[in-house]
Amino acid sequence: MVGAANSPPEKPVGDRAARLSWLPRLQSTGERLLAIVGLAAFLAGTLPDLPAIYNSGLTVLCLAVAVLFALEYIVRLRQAPARLSWALSAPALIDLLAAAPVPLALALGASPGAARLFGVFWALKLIRLDPAFSLFARVLRNERRPLLSVTTVFVVVILFAATAAFVVERRAQPEAFDSVPAALWWAVTTITTTGYGDRVPATLAGRVLAGAVMVSGIGLFALWAGILASGFSQELRRREFLESWDLVVRLPLFRDLGAPALSEIARSLKVQNATADAIIVRQGQPGDSMYFIAEGEVEVRRAAQRFRLAAGQFFGEMALITGEPRNATVVAAAPTRLLRLDVSDFRGLAARQPKLLEIIETENARRRVSAPT
Amino acid sequence: MVGAANSPPEKPVGDRAARLSWLPRLQSTGERLLAIVGLAAFLAGTLPDLPAIYNSGLTVLCLAVAVLFALEYIVRLRQAPARLSWALSAPALIDLLAAAPVPLALALGASPGAARLFGVFWALKLIRLDPAFSLFARVLRNERRPLLSVTTVFVVVILFAATAAFVVERRAQPEAFDSVPAALWWAVTTITTTGYGDRVPATLAGRVLAGAVMVSGIGLFALWAGILASGFSQELRRREFLESWDLVVRLPLFRDLGAPALSEIARSLKVQNATADAIIVRQGQPGDSMYFIAEGEVEVRRAAQRFRLAAGQFFGEMALITGEPRNATVVAAAPTRLLRLDVSDFRGLAARQPKLLEIIETENARRRVSAPT
Amino acid sequence: MVGAANSPPEKPVGDRAARLSWLPRLQSTGERLLAIVGLAAFLAGTLPDLPAIYNSGLTVLCLAVAVLFALEYIVRLRQAPARLSWALSAPALIDLLAAAPVPLALALGASPGAARLFGVFWALKLIRLDPAFSLFARVLRNERRPLLSVTTVFVVVILFAATAAFVVERRAQPEAFDSVPAALWWAVTTITTTGYGDRVPATLAGRVLAGAVMVSGIGLFALWAGILASGFSQELRRREFLESWDLVVRLPLFRDLGAPALSEIARSLKVQNATADAIIVRQGQPGDSMYFIAEGEVEVRRAAQRFRLAAGQFFGEMALITGEPRNATVVAAAPTRLLRLDVSDFRGLAARQPKLLEIIETENARRRVSAPT
Amino acid sequence: MVGAANSPPEKPVGDRAARLSWLPRLQSTGERLLAIVGLAAFLAGTLPDLPAIYNSGLTVLCLAVAVLFALEYIVRLRQAPARLSWALSAPALIDLLAAAPVPLALALGASPGAARLFGVFWALKLIRLDPAFSLFARVLRNERRPLLSVTTVFVVVILFAATAAFVVERRAQPEAFDSVPAALWWAVTTITTTGYGDRVPATLAGRVLAGAVMVSGIGLFALWAGILASGFSQELRRREFLESWDLVVRLPLFRDLGAPALSEIARSLKVQNATADAIIVRQGQPGDSMYFIAEGEVEVRRAAQRFRLAAGQFFGEMALITGEPRNATVVAAAPTRLLRLDVSDFRGLAARQPKLLEIIETENARRRVSAPT
Repeated sequence: MVGAANSPPEKPVGDRAARLSWLPRLQSTGERLLAIVGLAAFLAGTLPDLPAIYNSGLTVLCLAVAVLFALEYIVRLRQAPARLSWALSAPALIDLLAAAPVPLALALGASPGAARLFGVFWALKLIRLDPAFSLFARVLRNERRPLLSVTTVFVVVILFAATAAFVVERRAQPEAFDSVPAALWWAVTTITTTGYGDRVPATLAGRVLAGAVMVSGIGLFALWAGILASGFSQELRRREFLESWDLVVRLPLFRDLGAPALSEIARSLKVQNATADAIIVRQGQPGDSMYFIAEGEVEVRRAAQRFRLAAGQFFGEMALITGEPRNATVVAAAPTRLLRLDVSDFRGLAARQPKLLEIIETENARRRVSAPT
Repeated sequence: MVGAANSPPEKPVGDRAARLSWLPRLQSTGERLLAIVGLAAFLAGTLPDLPAIYNSGLTVLCLAVAVLFALEYIVRLRQAPARLSWALSAPALIDLLAAAPVPLALALGASPGAARLFGVFWALKLIRLDPAFSLFARVLRNERRPLLSVTTVFVVVILFAATAAFVVERRAQPEAFDSVPAALWWAVTTITTTGYGDRVPATLAGRVLAGAVMVSGIGLFALWAGILASGFSQELRRREFLESWDLVVRLPLFRDLGAPALSEIARSLKVQNATADAIIVRQGQPGDSMYFIAEGEVEVRRAAQRFRLAAGQFFGEMALITGEPRNATVVAAAPTRLLRLDVSDFRGLAARQPKLLEIIETENARRRVSAPT
Repeated sequence: MVGAANSPPEKPVGDRAARLSWLPRLQSTGERLLAIVGLAAFLAGTLPDLPAIYNSGLTVLCLAVAVLFALEYIVRLRQAPARLSWALSAPALIDLLAAAPVPLALALGASPGAARLFGVFWALKLIRLDPAFSLFARVLRNERRPLLSVTTVFVVVILFAATAAFVVERRAQPEAFDSVPAALWWAVTTITTTGYGDRVPATLAGRVLAGAVMVSGIGLFALWAGILASGFSQELRRREFLESWDLVVRLPLFRDLGAPALSEIARSLKVQNATADAIIVRQGQPGDSMYFIAEGEVEVRRAAQRFRLAAGQFFGEMALITGEPRNATVVAAAPTRLLRLDVSDFRGLAARQPKLLEIIETENARRRVSAPT
Repeated sequence: MVGAANSPPEKPVGDRAARLSWLPRLQSTGERLLAIVGLAAFLAGTLPDLPAIYNSGLTVLCLAVAVLFALEYIVRLRQAPARLSWALSAPALIDLLAAAPVPLALALGASPGAARLFGVFWALKLIRLDPAFSLFARVLRNERRPLLSVTTVFVVVILFAATAAFVVERRAQPEAFDSVPAALWWAVTTITTTGYGDRVPATLAGRVLAGAVMVSGIGLFALWAGILASGFSQELRRREFLESWDLVVRLPLFRDLGAPALSEIARSLKVQNATADAIIVRQGQPGDSMYFIAEGEVEVRRAAQRFRLAAGQFFGEMALITGEPRNATVVAAAPTRLLRLDVSDFRGLAARQPKLLEIIETENARRRVSAPT
């Protein structure tokens, strides 16, 4: 199923190795933990009737979290190549919001309870550290025009609904619908289908109106969902292609394929990361995909046999060709970046790109000859 | 419309027949029924003021269900090729949860009422037995990164909303918004647009905040819906291709077509299962698809005529070519797996793959010659 | 912009004309009106404290509606080629439900008020008469497996939520959460984010649970929306292709194009119906599509000029080629079925199917020569 | 990275320049501001217990807004080529609704408070001025048939739910469910999952019914979202193609490419507008797209170097070819319309349209030769 241990491992792809290294991961995990500890302290600190001793302890804890984030901010600022432009970037502003407000508020004489409230900014750290966050940012930016238009329609419907409710309900419920702004509160809770129930139309006209508002709320929401669904689908496709293209063009295996073939292969491959010791393929399970190693190294375990495959090699293709279960277990020997080819795409690709099948079969034959018995 | 009875039936596709056999179906229906009976007993057992006699009866019933599931678990464990790895798999853990807790709780001295509560785990059996369940599991795994990011944004918005509500509402409603954790309850019921109405902002600032929270709740939800919609659409396409490819490559009819043609045909065919005696095509109805028999057998009924078609044959093509209504009724003679080709795909395929049309027409001509009159 | 009046009109496409004729339309409008009148009478009849005179009047009205529907049922039954199979079809059962229950209930001695309640079945007539209804039916049938699986997960989550709420809340609110079935009511109103507010968790554990239930409710709903979105998109594409293929193959204009070209043209054309006197194209407006007349006839109005185009001809192509506004107004002279080709598809098609552009230009030139000045 | 300053700038694309000019933008911003001021005055005017002085002031303000809109209406009417047809168009009717009702109501003797209520029509101005509004209008029109069908199903489910609730709940809660119309109110608030909580079923049957209504509400809503999602995705693709096709065919760069190549290029390019002084590309950032200038002019800044590129030229291609960060900052020197080619599309295009790559490389070489050092 997999290449032989003595086939010369291809030279590592190199400059990307750092991405998978443990240091940045550890740091981001540390930051996350610190933010969560800080948020817990901030939340606990708002509970009423807190004994003074806990109160002081929480203030110290919040201050400590802020100071650690401040130190981190200073280190990052000093390391930045262009300090001013870094300081004005969104991530840096979030770092600053996590570091400055709590100590500043205390220094300016705010009560500890009030100062601790600024700890809520630590929540932004969780967003800043989220790797997939830029994905939304981009979808929202791409689709911002239709989304804004729906929002405009939202606002206009709410204004009309509130005015109509004010006209038809103010006589029946003078205290609840005594002005259009007051009716706006009813309109917003109704169009979002929240329905607190603190203001409910009492007249027939008011109820017919309310029904129309609820249904148009659902419709407007469906419009948002529709826009975002189509935006996501486009962006996800774009992103996956880019990520796998980057890796495909570096694989020596595909060196002789022309650009159109590479482009189609890149469209079919999915990038998959594996941490060290993660089991990628388990012996005896049905095989529904094969893997190309883009970075890192894996260990193949079959009975007592153990051997390694390095970047540039592939495994799991036998199960796709024969349809039999996996004949070995494969474990990541280091943090590894794989390109997964699902069986459905494998068949389509093999049909349209006969050269790919040939490459896989040639390599397969070569391995068999040199395989340990 | 359909092939002749005396054309030699192709040999059955074989190793898949088991899938359609009645034994596993009966077993899974039995398990489902058992789970439903157990759940009914567990639910009834929680009603207050239950007469003692019913109470004991329900305990016995619950115990019986648990014991049956325990027996099943033991049989499966003994039959598993690798017992430990099976015991640690998700399905096996569900089987264990369905079998062990009720008797164990009783053995450890819990009251019958408390022990019966563990019967809720029988609900997991319903999920475990659901054939399409792995579909979500896969979609959720594929899209877990963007879904998690949206959830992070969800949590951050809730934290900010609760802190802001605490700041603006605590003076007006000191008992309802007396801490950020208390305000969190309001924020969650508002952002999900549940709106119990037990905590409602009273100040203007609080209401503006509430409106923003409701709208962002709808937006975040639309993001989830968007991600999942695009994930499902991708996974469903992938799955259908795989299923029909598996069957298409075994059809002797397509033996001479190259891989690219097969790949396109597989993309167009939809797998459809029919239980024995199910009517597949009804005489006189408009014909919008033709069928290839992948496994099983069908009976064709036209006036007093009756004849059978076996795996590898096809029917329903006449209605597609002539546009007339079905000229016969076709009934599954055994559990049958069909590949359906819709008329829209038929026309596209026939245009791009003239060989397919040729195969169908040749076979059609052959049948006419040998058809019974 | 359009063909000349004296170019010989192609012979009408024929057997479809009936579809556009006024008789079935009038009948279905009549049925709809009757159903709406009946529903209004049934609704009014349930108002309390109704004067006896109105009460009797409404009973007579309801009976009249039922009798008319009964007559229609009898006529249809007599006209059906296969009476029994028609009587068992879904539309016939709806017709029966609209006709029988009200008179039957009165005959069996029910009070008029109770008998009129069966008038609610008239609402089903509205669904039966809806032309797009079969679309959902098909999408729901196609996607029924994943939809059912989500529903199973829904039920399981509700059961677990109710059991957990029963455990954590029964001490705090013994009357509201006194059994799992009672807690189920809370779980359902919460997971659907309806939130009546009649049962609200009071303990911290209960609130955390409620938050989780609300969020999973939103998630499950997003799953449904995702499945249906992908199902609709597939089915709508399929349907549009079929409808336009049917018409494209009959247009003499495309007689010489091969099947692959026809298949691509059919994919690009959208079917559009116009009632008599409807304005299809307005002089001076920007032109973003051209039209092929599949059935019916249109009148072209340019200044004082008036001439007609029949089935098989096309118009509106000049605006696409020159980019200038429409140079004439085109009105449907009879109920007309058009095939619309949007400018974006026109350009793509013209690029990939040069023959189509040639056909349009030849026809265009021929018209110019014979055009009235 | 970018073209040389001394390469002769292509002649501007011309007749579109007006679109980007400041006058219409200023006017639409002015109209928006006026509408917002008017809406604020109208909202403030409905507050109870308003001092008489404010009251008069707001009336004057509302009247002033209406008069300004009236003047604008008159100017537009006089400038319209076909006055009557303009006056009957939707935008003109909105303009009329913004201008006439307030003064008319005052003239007819309505109280100032009542007259000001007509100010709500100013909200329609916000929709009329929204550039993306026509997008929905079109999606809604395209999908109106399935949307209407879902709405019919909605209405039918509500009618059945209300009738059933009337039957099962009227004995338990005679005042809340005393007629089917009264039960309709409950059904609407429940099926939209608004759940005010003012009417809650009390019987077991009523609650089971309510659960079914909530779930079908979610299902119907998911149907809407599904239809709209698929409609949007189709319409957005169509629109982007049209917009970029319009610009691509005018670029001298692509003059020698055939229509199929142009069609594919247009599909890949995204239109992007930049206001004067907007930074399009920032030195040192990763480069994920290249740009073609369709209209306007940009300034390239590298160290102390400054030079301009005009319409017809392109920049940013070096980062795509070498994968290195941007080597210059590019700023819009005037309102500029760009065609963006993302790196993923660049690679696909370059593979399938080798001529495009050639054009870019030739131009690139030419620039290098003539570039200032």
